[in-house]
Amino acid sequence: MIVRPYQHWFPRLFSWHGAVLSKILFRLSLNLMMAVFAVICFQWYETLGIRLTTAPFSLLGVAIAIFLGFRNSASYARFVEARTLWGGLLIAQRSLLRQAKGALRRDPAAVKEFGDMLMAFSWSLKHQLRGTDSSEDIRRLAPESVRDEVLASPFRTNRLLLCMGAWLADRREEGAISDLLYNGMDANLNELAHILGGCERISNTPIPFAYSLIVHRTVYLFCTLLPFALVADLHYMTPLVSVFISYTFLSLESLAEELEDPFGIAANDLPLDAICNTTERLLSEMSDLSPLPAVHQPDAKFNLI
Amino acid sequence: MIVRPYQHWFPRLFSWHGAVLSKILFRLSLNLMMAVFAVICFQWYETLGIRLTTAPFSLLGVAIAIFLGFRNSASYARFVEARTLWGGLLIAQRSLLRQAKGALRRDPAAVKEFGDMLMAFSWSLKHQLRGTDSSEDIRRLAPESVRDEVLASPFRTNRLLLCMGAWLADRREEGAISDLLYNGMDANLNELAHILGGCERISNTPIPFAYSLIVHRTVYLFCTLLPFALVADLHYMTPLVSVFISYTFLSLESLAEELEDPFGIAANDLPLDAICNTTERLLSEMSDLSPLPAVHQPDAKFNLI
Amino acid sequence: MIVRPYQHWFPRLFSWHGAVLSKILFRLSLNLMMAVFAVICFQWYETLGIRLTTAPFSLLGVAIAIFLGFRNSASYARFVEARTLWGGLLIAQRSLLRQAKGALRRDPAAVKEFGDMLMAFSWSLKHQLRGTDSSEDIRRLAPESVRDEVLASPFRTNRLLLCMGAWLADRREEGAISDLLYNGMDANLNELAHILGGCERISNTPIPFAYSLIVHRTVYLFCTLLPFALVADLHYMTPLVSVFISYTFLSLESLAEELEDPFGIAANDLPLDAICNTTERLLSEMSDLSPLPAVHQPDAKFNLI
Amino acid sequence: MIVRPYQHWFPRLFSWHGAVLSKILFRLSLNLMMAVFAVICFQWYETLGIRLTTAPFSLLGVAIAIFLGFRNSASYARFVEARTLWGGLLIAQRSLLRQAKGALRRDPAAVKEFGDMLMAFSWSLKHQLRGTDSSEDIRRLAPESVRDEVLASPFRTNRLLLCMGAWLADRREEGAISDLLYNGMDANLNELAHILGGCERISNTPIPFAYSLIVHRTVYLFCTLLPFALVADLHYMTPLVSVFISYTFLSLESLAEELEDPFGIAANDLPLDAICNTTERLLSEMSDLSPLPAVHQPDAKFNLI
Amino acid sequence: MIVRPYQHWFPRLFSWHGAVLSKILFRLSLNLMMAVFAVICFQWYETLGIRLTTAPFSLLGVAIAIFLGFRNSASYARFVEARTLWGGLLIAQRSLLRQAKGALRRDPAAVKEFGDMLMAFSWSLKHQLRGTDSSEDIRRLAPESVRDEVLASPFRTNRLLLCMGAWLADRREEGAISDLLYNGMDANLNELAHILGGCERISNTPIPFAYSLIVHRTVYLFCTLLPFALVADLHYMTPLVSVFISYTFLSLESLAEELEDPFGIAANDLPLDAICNTTERLLSEMSDLSPLPAVHQPDAKFNLI
Repeated sequence: MIVRPYQHWFPRLFSWHGAVLSKILFRLSLNLMMAVFAVICFQWYETLGIRLTTAPFSLLGVAIAIFLGFRNSASYARFVEARTLWGGLLIAQRSLLRQAKGALRRDPAAVKEFGDMLMAFSWSLKHQLRGTDSSEDIRRLAPESVRDEVLASPFRTNRLLLCMGAWLADRREEGAISDLLYNGMDANLNELAHILGGCERISNTPIPFAYSLIVHRTVYLFCTLLPFALVADLHYMTPLVSVFISYTFLSLESLAEELEDPFGIAANDLPLDAICNTTERLLSEMSDLSPLPAVHQPDAKFNLI
Repeated sequence: MIVRPYQHWFPRLFSWHGAVLSKILFRLSLNLMMAVFAVICFQWYETLGIRLTTAPFSLLGVAIAIFLGFRNSASYARFVEARTLWGGLLIAQRSLLRQAKGALRRDPAAVKEFGDMLMAFSWSLKHQLRGTDSSEDIRRLAPESVRDEVLASPFRTNRLLLCMGAWLADRREEGAISDLLYNGMDANLNELAHILGGCERISNTPIPFAYSLIVHRTVYLFCTLLPFALVADLHYMTPLVSVFISYTFLSLESLAEELEDPFGIAANDLPLDAICNTTERLLSEMSDLSPLPAVHQPDAKFNLI
Repeated sequence: MIVRPYQHWFPRLFSWHGAVLSKILFRLSLNLMMAVFAVICFQWYETLGIRLTTAPFSLLGVAIAIFLGFRNSASYARFVEARTLWGGLLIAQRSLLRQAKGALRRDPAAVKEFGDMLMAFSWSLKHQLRGTDSSEDIRRLAPESVRDEVLASPFRTNRLLLCMGAWLADRREEGAISDLLYNGMDANLNELAHILGGCERISNTPIPFAYSLIVHRTVYLFCTLLPFALVADLHYMTPLVSVFISYTFLSLESLAEELEDPFGIAANDLPLDAICNTTERLLSEMSDLSPLPAVHQPDAKFNLI
Repeated sequence: MIVRPYQHWFPRLFSWHGAVLSKILFRLSLNLMMAVFAVICFQWYETLGIRLTTAPFSLLGVAIAIFLGFRNSASYARFVEARTLWGGLLIAQRSLLRQAKGALRRDPAAVKEFGDMLMAFSWSLKHQLRGTDSSEDIRRLAPESVRDEVLASPFRTNRLLLCMGAWLADRREEGAISDLLYNGMDANLNELAHILGGCERISNTPIPFAYSLIVHRTVYLFCTLLPFALVADLHYMTPLVSVFISYTFLSLESLAEELEDPFGIAANDLPLDAICNTTERLLSEMSDLSPLPAVHQPDAKFNLI
Repeated sequence: MIVRPYQHWFPRLFSWHGAVLSKILFRLSLNLMMAVFAVICFQWYETLGIRLTTAPFSLLGVAIAIFLGFRNSASYARFVEARTLWGGLLIAQRSLLRQAKGALRRDPAAVKEFGDMLMAFSWSLKHQLRGTDSSEDIRRLAPESVRDEVLASPFRTNRLLLCMGAWLADRREEGAISDLLYNGMDANLNELAHILGGCERISNTPIPFAYSLIVHRTVYLFCTLLPFALVADLHYMTPLVSVFISYTFLSLESLAEELEDPFGIAANDLPLDAICNTTERLLSEMSDLSPLPAVHQPDAKFNLI
């Protein structure tokens, strides 16, 4: 069922990385032009006593590589944390549905209501994180009893959580759920609250802007000056080597920017649509619904289970 | 609702990074002057047998970059931990209010009292961490029953926690809150205690001073001597390259200093005002208050939900 | 009982690392040929004004080494997390069986049923993660009562978890398991759910493809150009040094790719068969079964307990 | 209330870092002398065919910087963990006192007894970790009922924990503390046990000695040979550059050694006295004692709350 | 009571590090011989057009240093995790004994039986991890009631855990331990199960062999070729510098190998004997036994409490 990523590296090469490549293509062309310019004018401006050598650029390049390495790690850590939160979301949803199903064997309607709120929760969170409109998905999934309340709230995902808490409290007041089970399910609702809060935190607070900016600036300036430093040594080979070195630095810097905001819709961000769709399918299967919701357009960044 | 940071990079460029830039601008000017001095006097002092070459400065520059990289990571880790603690604060506050609301359906006055203490808690913590006077916000938010006790205490945030604990114990003695729910809410109060303690720890114990100092000193000395090492190779280009390399090192060192104390009011520190304001709005919305408190001046470092 | 790895380094040298070596052998041969070509043609193409020097390649090589170092760390972190999840699986399985055995002293048949589901769980998870067919192992191990239900489900491992939850609920309804113990066992079932979810997350979401790709590409291009940069300095020694440097970079890059997907069947991936087999033996011993299931073919990457 | 560290960098410059500086001052003088010696004798010993160049020392210097960077991170991680444990200690103590105060409203004497044991615990732990005699502080703080038992034990901090456990069990047997609260307080006592164990672990097991030693040795040897490698390039500037590079490496190595044992009394170690004093003041304030214990001599490394 | 490690650095210099040094002494001698050979034959083979220069070796050396740095971190992380697990073991054992003592005040015989199983557990785990025979220690410590069952099992440490679980269940059935306390003690038994599983995981799954091997191989080959690259620059100083650089790389690589398997008996591995002995003494003191078991031969790597 699982498709190993390296089986598809070739076709993905263009779709995925294309995004990073297209962003830096303009800068690489600029770099190429400057390198050609450096090769052509080298002998002329050298007579003016203007010269750049490789040595200080070696020092600078290594220093920038070190800072870029740490900055990439920080961005990647955000990506991993975001993915772990969404992984924990599926785990909590499955556990909640298993607990509800086990407790309310004689009330499938209530279980379905709860399952629908669970599914609506992940779609609503996705829309909140991406800044898109969740109305359609909430109308499609949220049970009628809470639909209007959720749609009216400015903080819809949190409101859905409130409604699940109320549903749980109602079941307990009815006596359908014992105190013991209530405790277990409440712990999983708390888990949902933690996931919501964690995603909001990642989404609301970017890496300190000055950090991104300093690295960004120095990388760009470094690549701009590089051809002039290389030309004395490399002459005709300057464009090749200069574009190669620039590609290494620019592409990693550009990727770090993409990963920093893992909930975006850039090529390397999290495939939230595919994850929400899988969640919906898994929860539906657990409720023995049939047929299962259709699989979305396959997503290159996500292996279906 | 969420504004992606890269949509605004240009306008932010000056407001944010300006803080770091203005701090190091004097040093960069100094560096520029020394570079010009080196270019002018180079031929004269070389005749005295004084010369500096790039090679040892390459070694030193890379070594300093490595140490600076680790030091930046340590500062950034403090920033991330501080942000995570404040994210956890919002999560715990929402959970506590949800639990209180669920338990005391017939006593909205008591719920409001509790919600007010929750809001006062985050403002009081903010003032404590920044060393500013919390009296105004406590008078505005803390319920009358505890206001004087809190204002009289030298440790106000902790005292608010004590009062919430007493409120909870009172509700339980009244029988309004069952043992089971008491346990769940007490766990969330413990979470508040952990967050308070964690913030105090970050705020009270800086990164060992010698660590900051050694890196700071070597970066500054390195940048001061750099022009004299570059001039033999680069001649007229010395000022350009020297200022560029200095900018890379000085700006990252300066940023590390800013991030080390994430509760400060420097440009890259945590936007505690915006966070407290958002918390107040979210908790008010959960209590179905209307109108919600006004949104503070939008903050460049924080995306409103 | 435990075999220390360094006692066997020599024989393992070929079986294990062979996998990485065979993958890069073609590239190393290519590199060797290019180095020989560079040595032969050096004097001819130098007259055309084409030259490459070591200095920019030093800078580039160190930068790539830094990025490769971080990328290796990210891959290794996935490997370690995957191993920790499988280690936690064994811990949870042992605890569950201990609890079941302690609670149902008078119903060994039910304990055996539960133990069989536990064993089936790890084999099923292994097949799910590797994309192989779990039918045989499920038929061999899953108790008759749930066999068909599990085989019919598209998400078999999760379904096994559901069945264990139902078994536990049934025991509690019978009164065989007290509320207190039910809570403790349910916590361990939640642990299984976390492990399942964690493994699915690692398996479904590779390291962002652009990250792997950029490092992969720059390493390959770097190794291809390297001989031409070295030949001016090293002449006849170019092939030796070029292949050596290429080996260092290519082998670590290739290993990072292998570790990134720790559930695969490459030589350095997790020995899931040996782990499942050990689990089966340990659980059988705890149930005082005899004889224990046979030890699988000894696995070089796993020390039997 | 909080004093930001950077407000005082200048006065602290001497008191704090002085410790690291004084340790390495002798080595730096030695380095200076060798550099002068190298400058004087350079021309003589060069005629003997003895020469050292910068290139291999660049390679070695960068390699050592990398290893030193990781070693510093390992030391700093111990420092951070130690600080977090002591931060957790204060959190657990406050929670325990809050719980005791809430439960035993009508028995202030018992609460005072418990609070005294809590205060004694942190002083006793401090003395244990520093290897100093805790008798005086235990006599001052421990309640009479347990004083002799604690003083007689070879493991006093652990014995205090045992006594708190016994106090709690007694209160529960009396019926003064319900089962529910007992559970909550026992969890916090377990937290104290974890903190005690964690501190003992850090204190008992240093970073593997060979690790410190190899880095220490190579740093010292490197600095000793450095002047001879620099002299050919730098001539009269050798002493300046050599001492500068040595300062960078020696001071960071020396600091790593200090941070490795965060419970010591070196300038950059944890200010355990100030922390214990603050704890005592905070707990006294919670018990509404007045006047509060005096603030110790202000400590440069710790901001009072 | 605590002996700070730096008070003894000198005497330890030989005992500890000796192990690493003796392992690499042969390689260092070989390196010295090759350096002497390079110095002698340099002029002869240079006439054949064979030459190696420092530049590519600088690049390679820095790259290897980076990879070695990450590999060392991975090994050290295993060491730290192993130490933390053993630290957690002592914490859980103390808590269990405290709980048992508090619950069974009137049945010291049962408490002693439980304490003996706890002590046997750590010795048995030590033997399992080192692959030595645990029979003697189990006969010495395990109470008679479970001795034969434990000795007969192929998985003795796990069997001891089963027996402690059975002991606890028996006490509860007798009514000697309430449900509440049972829960608390069961949580600590689960902790023991986690520690056992964690140690087995570290012990069973080494760092992927290819990782160790690639770093090992490149370090060795690098050191072998190094003298030939240095000789053109350094001439008579080649042996000194070559052995120094080789020492730095070989000793850290050798140490990484030692730390990777922290349960071994190499000089820098965990002092499991001293830890088990301390545990036995601490638990005996808590049971007010006298005299306490003798302190083992003092261990250089472990400070007695």
